[in-house]
Amino acid sequence: MRGKLYLIPNTLGGETLSNILPQEVIDTSTKIRFFAVEELRSARRLLRKMDREFPIDSSTFIELNKRTEKPSLYFLIQQLKKGIDVGIISEAGCPGIADPGAVLVAMAHEEGIEVSPLVGPSSILLALIGSGFSGQKFTFHGYLPKERKDRIKSLKDFEADSRRHGHTHIFMDTPFRNMNVLDDLLNELADPTELCIASNLTLLDQRIRTMSVKNWRENAYDLAKIPAMFLIGKSE
Amino acid sequence: MRGKLYLIPNTLGGETLSNILPQEVIDTSTKIRFFAVEELRSARRLLRKMDREFPIDSSTFIELNKRTEKPSLYFLIQQLKKGIDVGIISEAGCPGIADPGAVLVAMAHEEGIEVSPLVGPSSILLALIGSGFSGQKFTFHGYLPKERKDRIKSLKDFEADSRRHGHTHIFMDTPFRNMNVLDDLLNELADPTELCIASNLTLLDQRIRTMSVKNWRENAYDLAKIPAMFLIGKSE
Repeated sequence: MRGKLYLIPNTLGGETLSNILPQEVIDTSTKIRFFAVEELRSARRLLRKMDREFPIDSSTFIELNKRTEKPSLYFLIQQLKKGIDVGIISEAGCPGIADPGAVLVAMAHEEGIEVSPLVGPSSILLALIGSGFSGQKFTFHGYLPKERKDRIKSLKDFEADSRRHGHTHIFMDTPFRNMNVLDDLLNELADPTELCIASNLTLLDQRIRTMSVKNWRENAYDLAKIPAMFLIGKSE
Repeated sequence: MRGKLYLIPNTLGGETLSNILPQEVIDTSTKIRFFAVEELRSARRLLRKMDREFPIDSSTFIELNKRTEKPSLYFLIQQLKKGIDVGIISEAGCPGIADPGAVLVAMAHEEGIEVSPLVGPSSILLALIGSGFSGQKFTFHGYLPKERKDRIKSLKDFEADSRRHGHTHIFMDTPFRNMNVLDDLLNELADPTELCIASNLTLLDQRIRTMSVKNWRENAYDLAKIPAMFLIGKSE
């Protein structure tokens, strides 16, 4: 029997697990001793939250980030081939989305190893369903272009497509650039365009608001340095 | 104080909740007595699974499906304005994606009512992270066109875009048409194109496989009448 590669969801920054992880996800994850992790500290913190007695020191953590070369992951593939389960833990949310976890998943598929994604919080999904926009067709674009000119072109493309086809467009930026994104949205988009901003998802001060750009101009609030998802779409 | 509109995730067809729902999601949901539901039977079944003693008979269920007119939802908005919480339950998975739940969410936003999406299973998200394809940029297309000619055009567009830009394309069809979709994929796409099929997600016989179209031709399996997600993408 071969091991399974489990995709373990991390918190979105909150302190409690009971609102974001099913009990079986916790039970499965704390039985694993070999991990690929995006960031060591947040992975250990998650495991300690799952189980205060989790044996961090006798477990193996391989860092999996932009700088990781494939060969350093072969060790984990070898464990899987020997029948040992391996977990991937992202810095926040579900592994494999906007982080480098997908590399190891692809290697597992090449070797015919079973991949098991566990249920947990995804800011993309929570923002989408919380927005009231169409979930029939949507695109996640990841991070916006850094150049202001390119960023504005993207936003205008999303707006046009959403108006014409009702397609929902989801995007984000690094938290310290949120206010620039908001400025661009409010300055460049048309009055009636509908915009949703979902910030601090799953946290106590979670906020999900969908309004026209016109209304946002009068009711914008501070998004500096907090995690936020932006959505342009059409209410159903 | 106004009520909150909770988006309550349903199972993807499985019998147990401990692998798909956090305990707090169960606790929050079973305190609610007013619901908008896509399908009565599956909503009641979920609530009884959450709590065997759930007072179905003294709770209110408003059907929310393609035939629902907005006025019949005003009753629920009134409850929210009075300070009473309301839940939306889809037939399967998260409300608001490929179902009509988004209408009520949009109405709530118009009234400035707080919307709270709860964490649970989403086949789109589980399939995406389980595929090993890029999660940096992806599109969910919903159901494929029914006309074979249009369907094949869509599939070829996904293939071309994914080869050129590494964008992941996710789509589905009604389970009884799965084998036709699979035929089209294997007949019309190029040998090296990577295809993931994720079926029976979160169930005991869950299967997630990513292979080239060439390999799929030799290793296809029966997908008739089981829920499946299809993905065309590029392994990282």
